Amino acid sequence: MAEKRLPTIALLTDFGTRDAYAGIVRGVLANRAPEARVIDLTHEIPAGDVRAAALHLWQSHAYLPAGTIFLLVVDPGVGTARRPIAVRLPNGYGVGPDNGVFSYLMTPDTTRHAVVIDVSRLTTELPSLTFHGRDIFAPAAARLAQGAPLSDLGPPARELVTLPAPRLDMTARGATGEVLWIDSFGNALTSVGKLRVSGPKVELQPCWHLGSPVSFRTSAAVAEIGARHRLPLSGTYAEVPAGEPLAYIGSSGLLEIAVHGGRADEVLGLAPGIPVTLVFEG
Amino acid sequence: MAEKRLPTIALLTDFGTRDAYAGIVRGVLANRAPEARVIDLTHEIPAGDVRAAALHLWQSHAYLPAGTIFLLVVDPGVGTARRPIAVRLPNGYGVGPDNGVFSYLMTPDTTRHAVVIDVSRLTTELPSLTFHGRDIFAPAAARLAQGAPLSDLGPPARELVTLPAPRLDMTARGATGEVLWIDSFGNALTSVGKLRVSGPKVELQPCWHLGSPVSFRTSAAVAEIGARHRLPLSGTYAEVPAGEPLAYIGSSGLLEIAVHGGRADEVLGLAPGIPVTLVFEG
Amino acid sequence: MAEKRLPTIALLTDFGTRDAYAGIVRGVLANRAPEARVIDLTHEIPAGDVRAAALHLWQSHAYLPAGTIFLLVVDPGVGTARRPIAVRLPNGYGVGPDNGVFSYLMTPDTTRHAVVIDVSRLTTELPSLTFHGRDIFAPAAARLAQGAPLSDLGPPARELVTLPAPRLDMTARGATGEVLWIDSFGNALTSVGKLRVSGPKVELQPCWHLGSPVSFRTSAAVAEIGARHRLPLSGTYAEVPAGEPLAYIGSSGLLEIAVHGGRADEVLGLAPGIPVTLVFEG
Repeated sequence: MAEKRLPTIALLTDFGTRDAYAGIVRGVLANRAPEARVIDLTHEIPAGDVRAAALHLWQSHAYLPAGTIFLLVVDPGVGTARRPIAVRLPNGYGVGPDNGVFSYLMTPDTTRHAVVIDVSRLTTELPSLTFHGRDIFAPAAARLAQGAPLSDLGPPARELVTLPAPRLDMTARGATGEVLWIDSFGNALTSVGKLRVSGPKVELQPCWHLGSPVSFRTSAAVAEIGARHRLPLSGTYAEVPAGEPLAYIGSSGLLEIAVHGGRADEVLGLAPGIPVTLVFEG
Repeated sequence: MAEKRLPTIALLTDFGTRDAYAGIVRGVLANRAPEARVIDLTHEIPAGDVRAAALHLWQSHAYLPAGTIFLLVVDPGVGTARRPIAVRLPNGYGVGPDNGVFSYLMTPDTTRHAVVIDVSRLTTELPSLTFHGRDIFAPAAARLAQGAPLSDLGPPARELVTLPAPRLDMTARGATGEVLWIDSFGNALTSVGKLRVSGPKVELQPCWHLGSPVSFRTSAAVAEIGARHRLPLSGTYAEVPAGEPLAYIGSSGLLEIAVHGGRADEVLGLAPGIPVTLVFEG
Repeated sequence: MAEKRLPTIALLTDFGTRDAYAGIVRGVLANRAPEARVIDLTHEIPAGDVRAAALHLWQSHAYLPAGTIFLLVVDPGVGTARRPIAVRLPNGYGVGPDNGVFSYLMTPDTTRHAVVIDVSRLTTELPSLTFHGRDIFAPAAARLAQGAPLSDLGPPARELVTLPAPRLDMTARGATGEVLWIDSFGNALTSVGKLRVSGPKVELQPCWHLGSPVSFRTSAAVAEIGARHRLPLSGTYAEVPAGEPLAYIGSSGLLEIAVHGGRADEVLGLAPGIPVTLVFEG
C-alpha cells in the first residue's frame, strides 16, 4: 500500500508547548513535505539540555518507522558559529545542530555520511538569528522526506561534535553508572545498561562504549545507591509493598529505580548525576 | 472516499508530555497501523488516577468517529497481575488495563465481548515491566485498527474490574452528587447529570445508573454547595456579573459550577469530592 | 499530487493540554472533515487572553499552507452575546469569536467577507453554554475545509470587534513599543517591527498601522529599556558573553531582548507592557 511508504518526521525539541514554535515548524513541513507523517516525540526537553535530548533520541529511535527523519532542535548555540548538520542514523536520518545531540546513536557510518547544511540550497532568504528550526532544520528535513540524498544538502561535515558517553564503569564486582533522567512518574533512569533477561540470568551488554558482555544470576543482583540503599533486582512491581522502592530493568534496557505507587525521586532523593552501582557478585 | 474509512486511534494516558513516551507509542502505531489516524485526547491524566481517566473517556468518546479504538494507559498496576484487556465500547473499542478505566461506558455488551490480551499473539519479545503502552496496548490497538476482531487478541475476559459509579443520590427534593474534576479554566464538573434543556423545563436522566428521569422547571433549580452557596441554574454567563459564580448545564450534560471571568476552584474553594446538590423542588 | 491539496486546519486555543477539550475538537473535525490535516499551533494561550491569541496568529499564519483555516478559540465571552464569526485572512480563513482575535491580520478584505455563523446551518442541536469550540467553531471550520464558501455559514457580519494595535510610536529619534510576550526561553518579544536587515542598514516598516518605513545604520541602533538598559542591536548571540543581554531582530521581524544562555525576563525583570525604545539616531 502506498500509505505504508509515507516518510515519517519525528520532532524532538526544547520549544515547550506554550509558544507556537512547534506548530510553526509543522506548518513549514506541511508546506514543503505535505505527504510526510509528523510525530512529536516531545517538545519539553529542558531548555538547551543537549544530553537530555541525546538520551531521548537514543530511547525512542528504534520505535519509529525505518527511514524516519529525526528533527532535533535543542540548540543553545543558535546564532553562534555552530554548524547545522544532517546525518545518517541507524534507523533513519538526523537533522539538527552540530552540538552532540546525535552522539548516543553515532556509528562510524554516521560521521562518514554527515553533511553541513548549506542554507543557500534550501532558501534564498536570510535565516533568523534564533529560529533555525523553522528556517533551516525543517526545510532540510522536508528535503530528505522528499527523497533527496544527504549529499544534496551540503558538503561533508567530516568531524562532528560528540558528547562524552554516559558513565558506565565495569568492574568484577559490578557496573557503576549514574542517574540520567527522572521521568514524569518520578522513576529514575540510570546509565547502567543494556540489561536483558536471559532465562535465570541477566546479560549486561555495555551500550555506551565497546565492551564485553557479562552475565550474572538475577538473584545475585543488587542496586546500590550511595551507602544508603541496597535494592534487589525485581522482576515485577508486586515483589515490593506499595510505597517501597525497587530496582528493575526499565523499558529501554537500562537499570531503573522506582517506588511502587510513588515517586522515587522524592522518596529516595534521586536526581541526575547521582551514582548507582549494579552489584552482581556479592 | 477511502480516506473516510481510516480507522482512528484515540490516546488517553497519564504519560505527561515531558517524556517521549507518547511519541514512542505513536511510533509503534505508525509501524503497525500506518494508515490509522491518531488523536491525542490528553496525556495529562494525574498519574495513576483511573477514575479521572474513566471520566475523560466518558466525556469525549461520542465525539470521535464511529469505530474509534480508545487506547487507555492509566495503569498504576503495571508490572503486577492485573490483566491487559480489549473491549467493545458504545462507539468503538477500548484497549488498556483491566482496572476499571472503561467502567463509565460499560454495557452488558462490553463484558460479553471483552478479551484478555494474549501477548504472545502480538510479539515474540518479552514485554517490559513498566511500558505496556508500547509493548502490549499499542500493538493490540494496531491489530484492531487493521480490522482484526476482538477474539483475535485473546480469550474471553468474563468478569471485568469495575469502578463504583460517581455519586448521584436522587430524592424528591433534588439530586446530590459531587465535584468530579476541576478543568483548566477552574470550572467544576459535578456528577449531577445528564441534564438537558427541554423548553421551559430541565430533564435529568441519571447517567451513572439505571433510574427514572425527572423533569422540573428551570426557574426552580438551585445548586447548593455545602451550606455556603446557593446558585440558581443559569442559562448564560451573562446572567451574572463578572467575578460572580454560576451553576449551569455543562458541555457534557453535567451540572457545572464556574465563575464569570474567574476560577471557581479558587473563588469557591472547590475540589473533587465536595458534595453538590441540585435542588429542584423548593 | 492529490495529497498536496489537503486542506489544513490550524488550532490556536486556551484549552490547555490537561483536559480532553482539544482532543474532542479534533474528534469533531475527524468526523466532519476527515480528509483535513490538523495542526496544533498551541493550546496554552493564557485563559481568555485575546491579545496573546491575536499575536500568536499574527506570528504563525504565514508559515502554514495557503488556504489554512485558523480555528481560534480564546473566548472569554462564551455564553454571552458575542457573535461567532468566520473571516477571510491574508493566508486563508479564520473561525472564532468576534472579540478581536483576528485583529492583527485584518485587512479591508477581512471585514468585507466576514460572516456571522448561523448555528442552525451546522447542527440541529442546541450548542452548549461553554464549549463553542466543539459545537460551533469546529463544525464551521470543517464546512470550510470541505470547500464551502464563507457565505454558506451565515449572513454578513459588517462591523467586527477590533483590538487596539500594539504600541508603536515613531519619532525622529526612534521607535517606542512595549514587551508583548515572554516566550518559553525567557526571550521578550516587543511590538517594535517589522525590522529587516538590508545591507549595512536596517529597515523598519511599521507593521501595526500605516506608516512610512525608516532606514538607519545598524551600528547606530540601540534598544533602551527604561533608563536602566541600553543594548546595541546585535547580529549574533556570539557578540555578547554568556549571561549578558542582547537586543536583536527576532524570528518574526520584531525587536527582541534575550540573554545569551539565560532568561531575559528574569535577568532584566521584563514582562508584557514594559516600554522599549529602539533608538536609531543618537
